[in-house]
Amino acid sequence: MQARVLARLRDDGPLSKVQLADRLAVSRTTIAVEVARLGELGLAQDAGPAASRGGRRSTMVDLAADIRFLGVAIGATGLSVGVTDGRLGLLAVRERPCDIRQGPEAVLAIALEVAREVLAEAGVDKPLGAGIAVPGPVDFHRGVPVSPPIMPGWDGYPVRDALSRELGCPVVLDNDVNALAVGEQHAGVARSVNDFLFVKIGTGIGCGIVIDGELYRGVDGCAGDIGHIRVEDGGPQCACGNTGCLEAYAGGAALAREANALARSGRSTALADLLEQRGEALTAADVATAVSQGDPESLRLMRESGRRVGQVLASLVSFFNPGLIVIGGRVTGLGHALLAEIRAVTYRNSLPLATGSLPIVVSELGDEGGVIGAARLISDSVYAVDERL
Amino acid sequence: MQARVLARLRDDGPLSKVQLADRLAVSRTTIAVEVARLGELGLAQDAGPAASRGGRRSTMVDLAADIRFLGVAIGATGLSVGVTDGRLGLLAVRERPCDIRQGPEAVLAIALEVAREVLAEAGVDKPLGAGIAVPGPVDFHRGVPVSPPIMPGWDGYPVRDALSRELGCPVVLDNDVNALAVGEQHAGVARSVNDFLFVKIGTGIGCGIVIDGELYRGVDGCAGDIGHIRVEDGGPQCACGNTGCLEAYAGGAALAREANALARSGRSTALADLLEQRGEALTAADVATAVSQGDPESLRLMRESGRRVGQVLASLVSFFNPGLIVIGGRVTGLGHALLAEIRAVTYRNSLPLATGSLPIVVSELGDEGGVIGAARLISDSVYAVDERL
Repeated sequence: MQARVLARLRDDGPLSKVQLADRLAVSRTTIAVEVARLGELGLAQDAGPAASRGGRRSTMVDLAADIRFLGVAIGATGLSVGVTDGRLGLLAVRERPCDIRQGPEAVLAIALEVAREVLAEAGVDKPLGAGIAVPGPVDFHRGVPVSPPIMPGWDGYPVRDALSRELGCPVVLDNDVNALAVGEQHAGVARSVNDFLFVKIGTGIGCGIVIDGELYRGVDGCAGDIGHIRVEDGGPQCACGNTGCLEAYAGGAALAREANALARSGRSTALADLLEQRGEALTAADVATAVSQGDPESLRLMRESGRRVGQVLASLVSFFNPGLIVIGGRVTGLGHALLAEIRAVTYRNSLPLATGSLPIVVSELGDEGGVIGAARLISDSVYAVDERL
Repeated sequence: MQARVLARLRDDGPLSKVQLADRLAVSRTTIAVEVARLGELGLAQDAGPAASRGGRRSTMVDLAADIRFLGVAIGATGLSVGVTDGRLGLLAVRERPCDIRQGPEAVLAIALEVAREVLAEAGVDKPLGAGIAVPGPVDFHRGVPVSPPIMPGWDGYPVRDALSRELGCPVVLDNDVNALAVGEQHAGVARSVNDFLFVKIGTGIGCGIVIDGELYRGVDGCAGDIGHIRVEDGGPQCACGNTGCLEAYAGGAALAREANALARSGRSTALADLLEQRGEALTAADVATAVSQGDPESLRLMRESGRRVGQVLASLVSFFNPGLIVIGGRVTGLGHALLAEIRAVTYRNSLPLATGSLPIVVSELGDEGGVIGAARLISDSVYAVDERL
């Protein structure tokens, strides 16, 4: 009951007791008792009389105004930390470049430093809880990364418990795509959608799965690991150790690798020029620059990447019949060509029944989605615990 | 409450009122009231005193002994009809060859004829409800097939309402793989497994998805349509109108087509001999015969089919991280070579974390799984309605 009341107030905003009773299909007496209890715990508060609908006036209820959560989104090359209120509105947020390959001690020290800065900025002494997202597979129940391909040194490191000790509050650890998915569900384009996929195309590729409004994690917690679907036997080496993975063809790292090869071989003069100007290895963003300059090889590369992603998405559409696909991650900043190809190939290779009303859209939130999502994951956990911690 | 009590009695067998209260986490008073009400409706009955556990003896409750369901499983080339008790134990079952391409009127007339035979055999006047499964996509809520590739003439035909009128009882219509999946969950190898995939390889290929104990149908009801995942651009023509679908490479119809081509071209003398003996087109079963005779071309064909299925299953494992994959359908009768290849390719192409504890097993129920599953689908529906119909 507590979790359901608090989730409604979080997701729907302030509600009268009558509205709460209606939405949760329980009696008004039950709601009155529960709201009083939540008030004593410091989780909810009266918010004045409701607008009259005739008859006796109901009282508005809101989340306690002083609830604060911390959301930490760690990526391959940078991290974002934000402070939210109980409804997951961002009060302060900061980013910091940071290489995940420095290992957990160094990266978590930076995360904590940024966390203390944003907490101070928002005037928060201690948050009610913190959510943290990392770019790799996670054992959600143990709060540790599990064999994360692009996170050397993190395997089995007690991220959740280490942060919980430092911050003095409960912490949940999840992977970045799950956080992005629930962030988008809370505050982005997937709001009010109950069954959707969030596909992140960054350095790597992954997928968050929301079924009936809830994250689906799979039996071992590794559902959505679509970056390592093998799209071709043989094929290029992947960071995971296998060959021919989607990520090895279509992720940001793969685009960058191909771009450098095209530049060095001279097959693309546009990329060769960019390489000379930069004086260091090209990135996926350089491919987008070359596309905007009309470089045919870069356009071919981008389209080929989109085609591979689209082929995998088409099979997921046939299997899963989602209501919406949200594309997010750094690669979405690369312009129209990639997304157009993903859409075209996905629609062309799926059954008409499954794609008749299937929007494929770009994330509205960008990096902030991970911070909001991480905050939402800890709010789910904190709101479900029957005592204020 | 009614649905939960009846489902427990169906799935767990007779229970004492104390056990029922424990398993549903409600008070004993609530259970006593509900059981009395179900007794009046003729859905449940007292089943004598429970074994003493010290203290006051509880009363055993069971489903009413006279509950009967009808399960109808229609395949591409034959149908099975069975009568079950309230716990979905088969009391009588009959099969009849029947070509789905004869269209709905002719096929449903045969189904009704067989239904009347098994009902008479089981001494049943009118069943409490009937479930019917067909080999194609279905709009579950409207009770009609939707653009079913191998069912000419069935598109939009009101199967549910027509049967309901004839049988005088409520009817649900679903696709065959969904029925097979819940049949396996109720009485087969997936018993007690909450997240699994049932992959049917027959004339066509499809997948039933069970999440958290419930069928997942997708947003438009067409989840699990994996037979039409495109495994190669171009590729052979599929019954659905597209090219390169999994089904066009690996279904029973594809095996038969390839076998006939190998026989006629003389590339396989074993298949050529079988074709001459039979005097009519070869079937997938003939490929199995030729494999058992040591024909290398037939073995290659069977392995290639297994490889295609395994590649698709590997991507579903990465995406969905299921706890179990059950393989069913006629093609599972074709021997070891196919299943061995499916297993090898699925395991080889999936992440270790997702396949570490992933059994890939053969269905225990065969055709009866569809009948039991269809009965289970209507029992879910009937048990959830608050009055005996």
